[in-house]
Amino acid sequence: MKVQRTEDPGIGTSFEKPVERLMARDGSFRVDRIGESTGLREGFVALVTMSVGRLMLTFVLGYLTMNLLFGSLYMLIGVENIGNADMDTLAGRWMSAIGMSVQTLTTVGYGSLFPNSGSAWFVAAVEGVFGILGFSLISAVLDARFARPKANLVYSENALIAPYKDGWSFQIRLANRRSTLLVEVEARILLVMADVDDQGERLNYYNLPLQLDRVTFMPLSWTLVHPINPDSPLAGLTADDLKARRAEFLVIIKGMDEGYMGSVFTRRSVRYDEVVWGARYVRAFSVKEGATRLDLNKLSEHMPVEAPVRLPA
Amino acid sequence: MKVQRTEDPGIGTSFEKPVERLMARDGSFRVDRIGESTGLREGFVALVTMSVGRLMLTFVLGYLTMNLLFGSLYMLIGVENIGNADMDTLAGRWMSAIGMSVQTLTTVGYGSLFPNSGSAWFVAAVEGVFGILGFSLISAVLDARFARPKANLVYSENALIAPYKDGWSFQIRLANRRSTLLVEVEARILLVMADVDDQGERLNYYNLPLQLDRVTFMPLSWTLVHPINPDSPLAGLTADDLKARRAEFLVIIKGMDEGYMGSVFTRRSVRYDEVVWGARYVRAFSVKEGATRLDLNKLSEHMPVEAPVRLPA
Amino acid sequence: MKVQRTEDPGIGTSFEKPVERLMARDGSFRVDRIGESTGLREGFVALVTMSVGRLMLTFVLGYLTMNLLFGSLYMLIGVENIGNADMDTLAGRWMSAIGMSVQTLTTVGYGSLFPNSGSAWFVAAVEGVFGILGFSLISAVLDARFARPKANLVYSENALIAPYKDGWSFQIRLANRRSTLLVEVEARILLVMADVDDQGERLNYYNLPLQLDRVTFMPLSWTLVHPINPDSPLAGLTADDLKARRAEFLVIIKGMDEGYMGSVFTRRSVRYDEVVWGARYVRAFSVKEGATRLDLNKLSEHMPVEAPVRLPA
Amino acid sequence: MKVQRTEDPGIGTSFEKPVERLMARDGSFRVDRIGESTGLREGFVALVTMSVGRLMLTFVLGYLTMNLLFGSLYMLIGVENIGNADMDTLAGRWMSAIGMSVQTLTTVGYGSLFPNSGSAWFVAAVEGVFGILGFSLISAVLDARFARPKANLVYSENALIAPYKDGWSFQIRLANRRSTLLVEVEARILLVMADVDDQGERLNYYNLPLQLDRVTFMPLSWTLVHPINPDSPLAGLTADDLKARRAEFLVIIKGMDEGYMGSVFTRRSVRYDEVVWGARYVRAFSVKEGATRLDLNKLSEHMPVEAPVRLPA
Repeated sequence: MKVQRTEDPGIGTSFEKPVERLMARDGSFRVDRIGESTGLREGFVALVTMSVGRLMLTFVLGYLTMNLLFGSLYMLIGVENIGNADMDTLAGRWMSAIGMSVQTLTTVGYGSLFPNSGSAWFVAAVEGVFGILGFSLISAVLDARFARPKANLVYSENALIAPYKDGWSFQIRLANRRSTLLVEVEARILLVMADVDDQGERLNYYNLPLQLDRVTFMPLSWTLVHPINPDSPLAGLTADDLKARRAEFLVIIKGMDEGYMGSVFTRRSVRYDEVVWGARYVRAFSVKEGATRLDLNKLSEHMPVEAPVRLPA
Repeated sequence: MKVQRTEDPGIGTSFEKPVERLMARDGSFRVDRIGESTGLREGFVALVTMSVGRLMLTFVLGYLTMNLLFGSLYMLIGVENIGNADMDTLAGRWMSAIGMSVQTLTTVGYGSLFPNSGSAWFVAAVEGVFGILGFSLISAVLDARFARPKANLVYSENALIAPYKDGWSFQIRLANRRSTLLVEVEARILLVMADVDDQGERLNYYNLPLQLDRVTFMPLSWTLVHPINPDSPLAGLTADDLKARRAEFLVIIKGMDEGYMGSVFTRRSVRYDEVVWGARYVRAFSVKEGATRLDLNKLSEHMPVEAPVRLPA
Repeated sequence: MKVQRTEDPGIGTSFEKPVERLMARDGSFRVDRIGESTGLREGFVALVTMSVGRLMLTFVLGYLTMNLLFGSLYMLIGVENIGNADMDTLAGRWMSAIGMSVQTLTTVGYGSLFPNSGSAWFVAAVEGVFGILGFSLISAVLDARFARPKANLVYSENALIAPYKDGWSFQIRLANRRSTLLVEVEARILLVMADVDDQGERLNYYNLPLQLDRVTFMPLSWTLVHPINPDSPLAGLTADDLKARRAEFLVIIKGMDEGYMGSVFTRRSVRYDEVVWGARYVRAFSVKEGATRLDLNKLSEHMPVEAPVRLPA
Repeated sequence: MKVQRTEDPGIGTSFEKPVERLMARDGSFRVDRIGESTGLREGFVALVTMSVGRLMLTFVLGYLTMNLLFGSLYMLIGVENIGNADMDTLAGRWMSAIGMSVQTLTTVGYGSLFPNSGSAWFVAAVEGVFGILGFSLISAVLDARFARPKANLVYSENALIAPYKDGWSFQIRLANRRSTLLVEVEARILLVMADVDDQGERLNYYNLPLQLDRVTFMPLSWTLVHPINPDSPLAGLTADDLKARRAEFLVIIKGMDEGYMGSVFTRRSVRYDEVVWGARYVRAFSVKEGATRLDLNKLSEHMPVEAPVRLPA
């Protein structure tokens, strides 16, 4: 057999027991890390990478907590240390304390309430700084979330065993969901298949050579095509073989986002049960009055094609 | 014919119908994207990439809208919740509400107006945060607009079929419009020509080898020169051939901006009707008392030269 | 002897007297620099690179100093220039002066105290700017500390002379302490050994070829393996030889942090006395219900293996 | 003559008249640019690259101008629109107007003065925004100045024609003036010499191969050594030849600053009259109690060595 195995890309070649999937569908690795570092930086990264909804919630809760905390401090030292405070009722005192905190934390400082003793000045001096630093942090989080390149590629739901020239090929289609241009894009597909021998199960990695593995620009969709010739690790296999050997295709894309002028990486895992045996992608773009229109909703569209049960060897 | 075609740079080789121009003159692709992602990040990118005038307008409108919105909120809860408010006339009430909003949104907080009830404190607490976050966002937008490398190369209006040594060449001249230095600059010219065969129209891509395709620095103008030898895809062609085959030259420049210490990309498309058949660039820089002077207004200047109708094959 | 020396990696090949260790264990160089540049930028870098605790202390001290300084200025021009100031006692005057400073530096501006003369307005105008700029600086420091990629790799305490296939190898294990993924990771091990000849002592550098010197992803631990074949500079040596020649292994890792989309570098120095002669790493990860668990606390765990006194030549 | 010329590095090979020096000593090019782009971005770059002193002056003047401008606006609409304003004297009115501007521009907002009409609220609303945006800009400038890698290499005052092994070499020494580590540093020396032939003067570029042109780290000083063998463009030349041909050595350094995790470029030009014919650098570092000490003040120190008038051919 002429097929060349590739080196382990860093995932490992043997595990105690079979793994369902090496890489999640979205290209992430699900690894629990015991002894992981936990510091301010990790907290910051968590804020930068959490979902928008959770970030907003975290922020609102943080803001409420800070106001409650400092409001309680003003209550603790006594609202009589705040000038103009409403001393009549408990509700009035809390409103004054919270109001004092709000105007200090946001640095608005109406001054309808104001510190009139050393202790109140001290709490206010601390709170003012917390406010500024907290909002600086929020600002840094926003900056890190938005001002950094991050690819948003969309892949077709399925990979295909599709006709190519006089034979067959493995194909997967992708496109940029953003309107910023990706340039100098490189693609690579790794195939992982398990083999059982006398030493137990072993994962084998194969590089699938592509008809085109690098494009200068990617304005439209791009179909990655691995021609299945006799040197291909897929030559002579059936759909059942893929299943039996738990085939998983790792698609790795690397490029440069022109809007952000920075490198972007993205990955996708396609398992044997996400490969359509015998199909052809339907073109997703059209030319209308000189301009090109790309329909991202059609990216996964394909039509069936009669394919042999066993790929030619 | 010895001429070697190049691989598709990611644009595609066949379209339903002929395309006027693959790339706009300024190097952008005009693609309508259906199903494009639309999120906060896309909004941010839009703010970063829109023109200065539109950004200012957007900003002013946003500022007015926020003040109107929060002013209306203060009106809604009743201006009697704002201390010192002018309660006498409707205009006075609106002025108090808007003034309250302005001093809160900007965090100036004069305090001539101030919240004097729980509901007013609540709206103020929300508005103060919106103000800070909004201006943080503006700040991030400014940062992303200014603090990121972006090439500002100027190209000569026309490319030339110009004499070179004993023969002919395809030339285009460019220079940096900024005074920051570009270093490690690489240039590449792709020629696209359409061919009609029995399968329909097909685009062919050719790489045009340059006499110098990489410079270490680019302090002055740089003329890209593709010598038209027998291996050139331009060998043996006439101006009419270029037109018939809808020739388009894609100029791709990649470099490092020393002021920003980041990579810059820039492109330019030159169509057959922007090529002057038989001309020579006029030098755009001169030495005055030891110092060099580069006149960017002269970058496109050329003078006619007698050229053969058909380039030598 | 077939072993090829490598070029000096920039450390130097001879010193006046033997050096204990070329590189500290954490990969830093301990060099005293006379005539080092000392400017604002160096101060900024110091703030960015100091420990969190020291940064906080510096910040608190800076904030106190500024308030004391400007408080003193208000005292100097006279507290009677501050409206509403408590003029009765010295303590009251100081409290008014400090309070005036606090509300100005943080830009809160309650206004219970306010400038009521030209000189007070002048000091306030200066202090307001200092406040804004100071907090901008803090913000920039936070940004530079958090928003920049920085690897946090953990290495096994010891390197091992470990069995590999039918022979022996030099091994060291590492893992990412963070949950962000490292991609495109490259590893290199340089061995430095001192030789004494008639010209004095001379340091020799050897590159140790690795069984795998580049991985595409690093989700789990990675064991660097240098097989000791006859071409290895370690072939035929004993533990005593390593000590006599003061062997030091420099491990150099380079990768791309996917969370930050930026390059990271990290180094580690392993001296002869940190090499365990004859041991094997214990696997640090396990598969639990489909998910993988990596225990970073086990990274250094190894078990002894019988090894020859002299490595095969 | 075996000496190979190198391609033009982007500077040009012929000028109308001889140029004193192609590159200034600090590696910059002195080019006057007519038609240079002048926009907001260029202004920003100017602020980022000007000297600290000039930046401070610009900032102070800008701050004064803004306060004068808005103060004048308050005067124009009439100080009676500011609550609590001192209406008695012209000086008092100006103080109120300027004070109103200061507290608004810095967003301190004491509120001892406050808008009490629609027109005043309008000016205040505009000024508050100008203040925030202005300080955001300052913040972005500080960030861009400090938070970006910028090499600070120091070069020896003179390059040397120094002994090397059994022959001679061209040497220049450099070191990092900062304590952050430079890694993956590459060096290149280009020699430019003018030749006069019948077509006029022509500049020739030669690459000088270095004994070591790349180091992994640069903790100490680094001496670039070009051995003058028969293939060297310097072979067979005298000091007078260098002068006659107006020899200029362009030293180009490229590396990665580990503190900032970004690329740095730096250049240096050494003219024939800055080359010492026959000398040897004195070692600039020493080992003291295990630690290494690098004395940057000694970087240029060299001692004379007897050298032949003509280098061996």
